Amino acid sequence: MCTSDQAKTAVPQALRFEPRTSVEQVEEGHDLAPRFDRDGLIACVTTDAASGEVLMLGYMNREALERTILTGEAHYWSRSRQVLWHKGATSGMVQTVVELRIDDDQDAVWLRVSLLAGTHSAPASYHVGYRSCFYRTFKPHTGRIGYVQTAKTFDPKLVYGVTPNPTIL
Amino acid sequence: MCTSDQAKTAVPQALRFEPRTSVEQVEEGHDLAPRFDRDGLIACVTTDAASGEVLMLGYMNREALERTILTGEAHYWSRSRQVLWHKGATSGMVQTVVELRIDDDQDAVWLRVSLLAGTHSAPASYHVGYRSCFYRTFKPHTGRIGYVQTAKTFDPKLVYGVTPNPTIL
Repeated sequence: MCTSDQAKTAVPQALRFEPRTSVEQVEEGHDLAPRFDRDGLIACVTTDAASGEVLMLGYMNREALERTILTGEAHYWSRSRQVLWHKGATSGMVQTVVELRIDDDQDAVWLRVSLLAGTHSAPASYHVGYRSCFYRTFKPHTGRIGYVQTAKTFDPKLVYGVTPNPTIL
Repeated sequence: MCTSDQAKTAVPQALRFEPRTSVEQVEEGHDLAPRFDRDGLIACVTTDAASGEVLMLGYMNREALERTILTGEAHYWSRSRQVLWHKGATSGMVQTVVELRIDDDQDAVWLRVSLLAGTHSAPASYHVGYRSCFYRTFKPHTGRIGYVQTAKTFDPKLVYGVTPNPTIL
C-alpha cells in the first residue's frame, strides 16, 4: 500500500473516471473513460521510458489504475495472487510513472516508467531476475526460443526469498 | 487470410507449441509453450521496430499466433468481431514481423513490426486514423486526456468505408 509520503508532485489530487456514453466520446474525446473487462481489469503495457523496452504486460483493476495515477507509481492487479500489487513493494524496484497513455477504445493503458535501482544494484523488474519480462525471442530457424538478455540483473532468491512463484501452468 | 505468395523467407515451415510441464521449462527453457487464457487468447503488445512506439495491444488465439509466425505478418483475434484478423487485409497496412518475444510465464507476446505504407500515403495503424492506438495521454493537472498525435495519417472513412466501428462501450 502507498503512504502519503510516497506521493509525487505531478499527480492530481482527485480522479474521476467518466461513464462511457458514445464511441465518439471514448475515441475522440478528452474524458478518461476506461473500460474494465468482465473480471474488472484493464490491460497495461509498461515500457522503460529511457530505452523504450517493453518491461511487462500486466493488468489493473480500478483501484490499481487510480493508485497508479494518484501516487505516480505503478500498481497492478496480480491475477495469480489475486491482490493489489504495488510494484517494487517487495523488491524495492518501484516503477515511477513518466507518462500514462490510453488507447482508442480505452481498454488498454500504456505506462512509460523510470526504473530506480531501489535496494539492489541494478534496475530490474521481474521475479525471474531479468531486466524485462521479455528476455526470450522466437528463433524462426529452430522453432524454439532463445535468450536476448543473458545476465540476470538480480538474484530472485535473495530478493523474493520464499515468496511463491506466481507463474501458472 | 494469407496466401502463399505472402509468406516471408525467415519463417519456419512448421511450428509446434509445447505442452507446459513445469515452471522451469516455461520460464527458463527454450520451448515455445504459450499459455492461452480461458477464452483461448494470449495478449500481444505490438511496437514499431523502428521507433519503439507502442502501436497496439491486441489478442491472438492459437491460429493467429501460428499464422503470425508462419507468414511473418501479424494476425490477431478480433474480440469485438470474433474473427481471425490479418492486420492490413482491409487497409493495406500490414505489420511485418521483425521479432517475436515471449514473456517469463509465456502468457504474453511482444511483437516488433515494421509498417509499410501499403496502399496509403503514410504508415498508420488504427481504425481511428492515427499512427498508434495510443494517441492520447493522461494530463495530471486536469485529470483528463489530451492528444499526443494530432494529425491523422489517413482518413478512416476512405480506408474502411462502411465497416462497423469495432469499439465496444
